[in-house]
Amino acid sequence: MIDTIGARARAASRELSRSTGEARRRALLQMAGAVEAATVDLLAANDADLRQADTEGIGAALLDRLRLTEARVAAMAAGLRTVASQPDPIGRETGGWVLHNGIRLHKVRVPLGVVAVIYEARPNVTADAVGLCIMSGNAVILRGSSYALRSNQAISRALCAALTEVGLPAHAVQLLEDTSRDGARALMQATEWVDLLVPRGGPGLIAAVQADATVPTVIDGAGNCHVYVDSAADLDMARSIVVNAKVQRPGVCNAAETLLVHEAVADDFLADVAKTLMAEGVELRGDDRSRELVPEMLEATEDDWATEFLDLIMAVRVVPDLDAAIEHILRFGTGHTEAIVTEDTEAAEQFVSGIDTAVVAVNVSTRFTDGEEFGFGAEIGNSTQKLHVRGPMGLESLTSERYVLYGSGQVR
Amino acid sequence: MIDTIGARARAASRELSRSTGEARRRALLQMAGAVEAATVDLLAANDADLRQADTEGIGAALLDRLRLTEARVAAMAAGLRTVASQPDPIGRETGGWVLHNGIRLHKVRVPLGVVAVIYEARPNVTADAVGLCIMSGNAVILRGSSYALRSNQAISRALCAALTEVGLPAHAVQLLEDTSRDGARALMQATEWVDLLVPRGGPGLIAAVQADATVPTVIDGAGNCHVYVDSAADLDMARSIVVNAKVQRPGVCNAAETLLVHEAVADDFLADVAKTLMAEGVELRGDDRSRELVPEMLEATEDDWATEFLDLIMAVRVVPDLDAAIEHILRFGTGHTEAIVTEDTEAAEQFVSGIDTAVVAVNVSTRFTDGEEFGFGAEIGNSTQKLHVRGPMGLESLTSERYVLYGSGQVR
Repeated sequence: MIDTIGARARAASRELSRSTGEARRRALLQMAGAVEAATVDLLAANDADLRQADTEGIGAALLDRLRLTEARVAAMAAGLRTVASQPDPIGRETGGWVLHNGIRLHKVRVPLGVVAVIYEARPNVTADAVGLCIMSGNAVILRGSSYALRSNQAISRALCAALTEVGLPAHAVQLLEDTSRDGARALMQATEWVDLLVPRGGPGLIAAVQADATVPTVIDGAGNCHVYVDSAADLDMARSIVVNAKVQRPGVCNAAETLLVHEAVADDFLADVAKTLMAEGVELRGDDRSRELVPEMLEATEDDWATEFLDLIMAVRVVPDLDAAIEHILRFGTGHTEAIVTEDTEAAEQFVSGIDTAVVAVNVSTRFTDGEEFGFGAEIGNSTQKLHVRGPMGLESLTSERYVLYGSGQVR
Repeated sequence: MIDTIGARARAASRELSRSTGEARRRALLQMAGAVEAATVDLLAANDADLRQADTEGIGAALLDRLRLTEARVAAMAAGLRTVASQPDPIGRETGGWVLHNGIRLHKVRVPLGVVAVIYEARPNVTADAVGLCIMSGNAVILRGSSYALRSNQAISRALCAALTEVGLPAHAVQLLEDTSRDGARALMQATEWVDLLVPRGGPGLIAAVQADATVPTVIDGAGNCHVYVDSAADLDMARSIVVNAKVQRPGVCNAAETLLVHEAVADDFLADVAKTLMAEGVELRGDDRSRELVPEMLEATEDDWATEFLDLIMAVRVVPDLDAAIEHILRFGTGHTEAIVTEDTEAAEQFVSGIDTAVVAVNVSTRFTDGEEFGFGAEIGNSTQKLHVRGPMGLESLTSERYVLYGSGQVR
C-alpha cells in the first residue's frame, strides 16, 4: 500500500520539481478558493467527525482543536494565500563561483522530493502542510488522526481538485486513509519514498518517531523555555515579558516554563511579578530563596526544572549571577527559546554567546519563536535539532541545495 | 568511558564556541608546525603500525593508505594551513530582518558542538578532520582504525599540544584508544554528547552506522556515477571526459561507473572510446547494442547497472534519447554526481532539471566533486543525503544556524 502511494508521490514530485514558481503559486491561490467554496462540505464532514469523537469521549480541549468553523475555514484559505505570497525558494542561487580551472559552479535550492507529515486531530494542519509542501515543490503524504479523517478527506479532496485544475499532478497530495499505528509505522519506514518526515504532535508521537522512523526526520521537540531577569533589567519590562511568556498561551512550546531572577533584583521583582502571575491563575513552584520572598509558592523539585508544563505552572529560581543562569539553562533547556531581560549590552552578549538554542531572545517574550511572526507566512514545525534546520520551519526548511557545474571539457 | 570523554568534549566545545576565528586560525597554524616538527616521531609510530599490520596481512592497498612518508606528513601540515586560510564561518550573519513589531532578527552561523568521526586506517584523516572541526569551532572525538592506533596517537598528541599552546582547550581533540566494535557502537549512540557523526569508510562502516547509530549522522554514501554522451556531444570532449572519469582514479566515489551513449552517436563514438578505455585496462560490460558495435565487451547484467565497481570496470548502454538516459540514472544513480556531455544548451538544461543529485555536471568530468576542487580547502566527507548538507562537506557543513532576537520589551 505504502509502496503504491510512495511511487505516485515520487512521480508527482518529479513533475513538481520542474514546475515554475508561478504555477505553484497559482495552485495555492486556486486551493484557497477551493477551500472557501467547499466550506459547507467541510463543515458537514467535520460535524460527523466531531459527533463520533464526542461519543468516544476525547475531551473538550481536543474537540476544540478538531472543530472547524466558518472563520477557521477562512483562516485556512488566508494561510494558503499568505504562503503563496512568499518568495519562491526553488531555483534560488545560494552560492556561485568559478573554480581555478574555469568550471562555473552554481549552488542552487531544490525541493526535497516527498515530504510526509504525521499529525494530530487538527484539520487546519492539512491545508497548512499542503500549502508549504506544494509551494516548495514537494509532493506530500499526509497521515492525520483517525478522529479527523472525514474532515481531512474533504479538505484534501478540495486541494487535489485545485491542483489538477492548474495542471499540476493530483498525486502531489495524498492522504492516508489507513490511520492505524501500523500505517504510521509503514510511512516512518518508507525509506525508498520519503525524503523528510515531519511529525507534528505531542511527546507520544515524537517518541514513536524517534523509536521507529528510519526515514530522515526533523524533530519538533519540547520547549522548556526560560526567562532570565538580569540585575540590570528594566523591571517593568521584565514583568510584562514574564507574564506574557507564561500566560498568553501556556499550552504551546514557546511559552516559558521557568523564571530565573538575579538575586540583586529578586527583592524588588519577585513579590511583584508573583502577585501578577498568581492573579492570572499561575501556580508558582520556587526554590528556597524564592519562597522566602514569596511564601505562597510551592516547593520546586528537581523534576520541575526539567518539565515542560504546558500549563499555568511556573518554576522560579533565584540565581547568584548570569553564569549561574546560563548553567541552569544549559542543564535543563531543550534547545528551543531562551530569553534574557537586561539593559546591560555586555550581559546580553554573554547570554547570547553562552547559550546555544534555536532562538535566543534579548528583551523579547519567548512567544515570538513562530513561523508567522518570523515572516515565513506559516510553519510546518519548529525544529529543536541542529542538523538541516533550526527554529521555525518555513518554505526553505523543505528544500535542499545541490551543485550544478558547467564546464568546457575539464578533466583531472 | 564514553560519558567521560563526551562530557570533556562538551565542555571544550563550549569554550571553543566562544573563541575568535583568529584564535582558531592560530591553532591550525600551530598544529601545522607541530605536525612538521614531529615528523620523526610520526614516522616511527607509523612504522610500528605498518609492521604489525603487515604481519596481520592487511594487503598492499590498505598498507599504502596506512603509510606515512615525509611528503605525506608535509601534506597534512599543508592541509591544515589551507583550512586555516578559509573564511571563518562562525558568527557569519546568513540573514537578518526587522519584524513587524520592531524586533531585530539575526540568523547567525554557530558550531554544531561535538563532532565524532569514525574512519579507516588512513592517519592523514586525523589531521584533516581535526583541522576542519576546530576551525569551525567544534570539539572532535576521533575513532580511527586499530591498525593506525600508534600513528593516530602520535598525530593527535602533536595537535593537542598545539591547541594548549595557543590557549584553546586540549579536550577539544580526543582520540578513542578503544578501537573495538563495542567502542564504536558506544560512540554511535552517545546522543547526549555527539551532535554529528561522520563515518568515513566503505560500505561495511556505512551499513553499521545506518543500523546502529542513534546520534545525528551525515552519510557519505556510494557513488554510482554516470556519464551520458548526448547526440549533440563534442565527441573528442566526450572521450576525454569518459576516460578521465573512469581511469584517472577508479577507486574513489566520484569515478564514473556507467557510460550511457545516445544511439545517434553510438556508431561514431563507442568503438573509439572503447579502444582507449581497453588500452587503459578497463573491462567493459555492455548491453546488446553496445556489444554489436564493440564485440570485445562482456555482457552487462542488471546488477552491473547498480554496482559501484570502484575498479577498472565500466558498464555501457546505448539509449534511444535523453529521456531514457535520465530514466536510467533516476533508477540506478545514488545521488552523488551525474554528468552530461553536450553542446546543446536545451539538452543540458533538461538533464540538469531532470536529475536531482548532489552534483550535476555539464561538460565536466565527474571527478570534480571534491572539497578541495570546490575551494573548501579540505572535506570531511561527501554527503549523498538531502538533509543538512549535500556534496563535498567543508567548514560550513560542520555548522548550524540559530536566530538571535533583539527587542525592547515586545510581547504578544
